[in-house]
Amino acid sequence: MKLSARNILSGKVEAVTKGAVNGTVKIAIGGGQHITSSITNEAIDDLDLKVGDTVSAVIKSTDVLVGK
Amino acid sequence: MKLSARNILSGKVEAVTKGAVNGTVKIAIGGGQHITSSITNEAIDDLDLKVGDTVSAVIKSTDVLVGK
Amino acid sequence: MKLSARNILSGKVEAVTKGAVNGTVKIAIGGGQHITSSITNEAIDDLDLKVGDTVSAVIKSTDVLVGK
Amino acid sequence: MKLSARNILSGKVEAVTKGAVNGTVKIAIGGGQHITSSITNEAIDDLDLKVGDTVSAVIKSTDVLVGK
Amino acid sequence: MKLSARNILSGKVEAVTKGAVNGTVKIAIGGGQHITSSITNEAIDDLDLKVGDTVSAVIKSTDVLVGK
Amino acid sequence: MKLSARNILSGKVEAVTKGAVNGTVKIAIGGGQHITSSITNEAIDDLDLKVGDTVSAVIKSTDVLVGK
Repeated sequence: MKLSARNILSGKVEAVTKGAVNGTVKIAIGGGQHITSSITNEAIDDLDLKVGDTVSAVIKSTDVLVGK
Repeated sequence: MKLSARNILSGKVEAVTKGAVNGTVKIAIGGGQHITSSITNEAIDDLDLKVGDTVSAVIKSTDVLVGK
Repeated sequence: MKLSARNILSGKVEAVTKGAVNGTVKIAIGGGQHITSSITNEAIDDLDLKVGDTVSAVIKSTDVLVGK
Repeated sequence: MKLSARNILSGKVEAVTKGAVNGTVKIAIGGGQHITSSITNEAIDDLDLKVGDTVSAVIKSTDVLVGK
Repeated sequence: MKLSARNILSGKVEAVTKGAVNGTVKIAIGGGQHITSSITNEAIDDLDLKVGDTVSAVIKSTDVLVGK
Repeated sequence: MKLSARNILSGKVEAVTKGAVNGTVKIAIGGGQHITSSITNEAIDDLDLKVGDTVSAVIKSTDVLVGK
């Protein structure tokens, strides 16, 4: 499936934290930069996300603010 | 001002496109990766965004999907 | 690629409208219901979206409000 | 109140899960499709959401990605 | 219809700008503060939004960043 | 850093609630109106958010629905 999202960044999972119903996934995307994603525990389980996994961080362009 | 957003990626503006009321800004964030932001023309003017500017792409962690 | 998004609804494209930099895609998802997506013209072109295409509407659960 | 959101899907609540501060609500929207919403526990209580309730899933068109 | 959104701010429309497919609506919410909403032209027409209208700005709590 | 976000509302923190990985921050923005933000506990700690703090609620215009 090809996605309309303009931002599909490849990276490696650095940390997975599960809470009560939501968790966070930290992804190293190269160039010394990192992305944190907040998703449901259910999604973490469905994708079987573990440290070291090669993943994509998918972000719709309307969700990106610019600071200068 | 310090922001709650977990993702503040530094980069350089590669392209600015203005439409009728919204435009897009493409930002190189290093490691060969890029971020596209869709913001209002008004914001593009307020920040005087131009190719070559050093900027930050600010993304709330709840707006990041993970693909594997 | 498997996505963390909890909502991946299958449907058929009913209409594609392009504007200056953004456009809208209307998708019939069955049961007499419809989804409208607002994406960039660039994404419409990349996915070569046309009336009648079988597509998925992908929505993160944090982007769904409930009304009662 | 009439809403600007382009997507107001009617459905029935199938499951309500409360976590620490956020919870999830699963809604059957017909045609064999389902929507999961992630909202605060406070909202779940305010709307008194229970399995079997007739509700609407409200989604802004800018929050819908398309996959093909 | 009661909404799960934690933020329903009442205000008065100050300006409506239509573009190609999207437009912006500026709303005065009191205390000298203002909210700008970016919605489709179709939504502006459906709600027949005009300067002086009493409206609500509806914002999901997950879409609010905090700066300090 | 100047932000592209069209909505930067100033206010005072009224309440901070931490959950398992996410929490909520309630902000009084004047004119008798309030904003609730849902952010990570990590962000609450990083910004050292406490009742009485002067803060900004930052909201992208694409995340604002209008009701009439």
